[in-house]
Amino acid sequence: MSKVYLAGPEVFFANGNELIEQKKDIARHYGFTPVASVEEDDFPSGKFESGMFISTLNERLMKSADFIIANLTPFRGISADVGTVFELGFMCALGRPVFGYSNDPRDYDERAANDYYVGAIKPVDGLLRAPDGQMVEDHEMADNLMIDGGIIARGGQVIRPNAGARLANDDTSMFESCLAAARDYFAMRA
Amino acid sequence: MSKVYLAGPEVFFANGNELIEQKKDIARHYGFTPVASVEEDDFPSGKFESGMFISTLNERLMKSADFIIANLTPFRGISADVGTVFELGFMCALGRPVFGYSNDPRDYDERAANDYYVGAIKPVDGLLRAPDGQMVEDHEMADNLMIDGGIIARGGQVIRPNAGARLANDDTSMFESCLAAARDYFAMRA
Repeated sequence: MSKVYLAGPEVFFANGNELIEQKKDIARHYGFTPVASVEEDDFPSGKFESGMFISTLNERLMKSADFIIANLTPFRGISADVGTVFELGFMCALGRPVFGYSNDPRDYDERAANDYYVGAIKPVDGLLRAPDGQMVEDHEMADNLMIDGGIIARGGQVIRPNAGARLANDDTSMFESCLAAARDYFAMRA
Repeated sequence: MSKVYLAGPEVFFANGNELIEQKKDIARHYGFTPVASVEEDDFPSGKFESGMFISTLNERLMKSADFIIANLTPFRGISADVGTVFELGFMCALGRPVFGYSNDPRDYDERAANDYYVGAIKPVDGLLRAPDGQMVEDHEMADNLMIDGGIIARGGQVIRPNAGARLANDDTSMFESCLAAARDYFAMRA
């Protein structure tokens, strides 16, 4: 049974542990063995030391996993959680299959225009530019091109709602679509 | 001569090309051969196709490099540029030495408290929590623990100003300190 590393910002949510356990149950329903970062009791007590401990633990969990599903829903801003993105890059370099999803239907440039620069982006010489002259990526992708590109180049998918409002953090439908895509991916290669 | 991959959000800056060329010159001064993502003329014309092209190009450049220096200065929010973070995770998994710097002196929790939640974070049962119940990382690190942890576990450093205001985007002093640290790293292992 393939082992899936569940990456995402859930660890920061108020109901994070419940949500992670729920996602693990769903992953098992799709035939996978889930692993995810955990809050354990035997962490070192120091702030810095516990950070290093969790980082090392997560890298070890990733190496033990066959593939990753990354929750790329924007977190505290217009892009995915950076911890999740680190893990996605890590698994790409290991050559493991990678899948991602976002509960937000919008492309990166739409979020930048509406949620960060608030309507002030304009096309200049074929590129989108903000008032400060900064360029805004416009590759019809969910997030930075390294994220979408890394996933798609490896035969994975970045799954999002077709349109409409951003789904709630505890809506697992995009996650389930990712699991279905992963199941198909492995079935085709079995 | 060791080849260094220069990762950072400079590609989005109005003066990005000049800044990248300047950083390449400085890297050469420290004895390294720099490589960085480039804007080329022969990109595919389609938005999505050019995104995939650059992603593939950058992954190839990273594989050709001996180590990475990542500009982790917060970009359009309270965390590092996600493209840069993907690349950092990628190089960590490849087992290459990794170095990072930020022009912002603050820990992640300070930025979350002041720039995102605007003073509304409080300690609850030993963890920092926002009004929505979300936990805010407090590991005395520059950003998410996967970033700092991945760098430090490999003998690299996350270099920041000691205190004071965030340095301007075109201030290269932290970048130079990173190059000096990398030079020492390779000298010790020569």
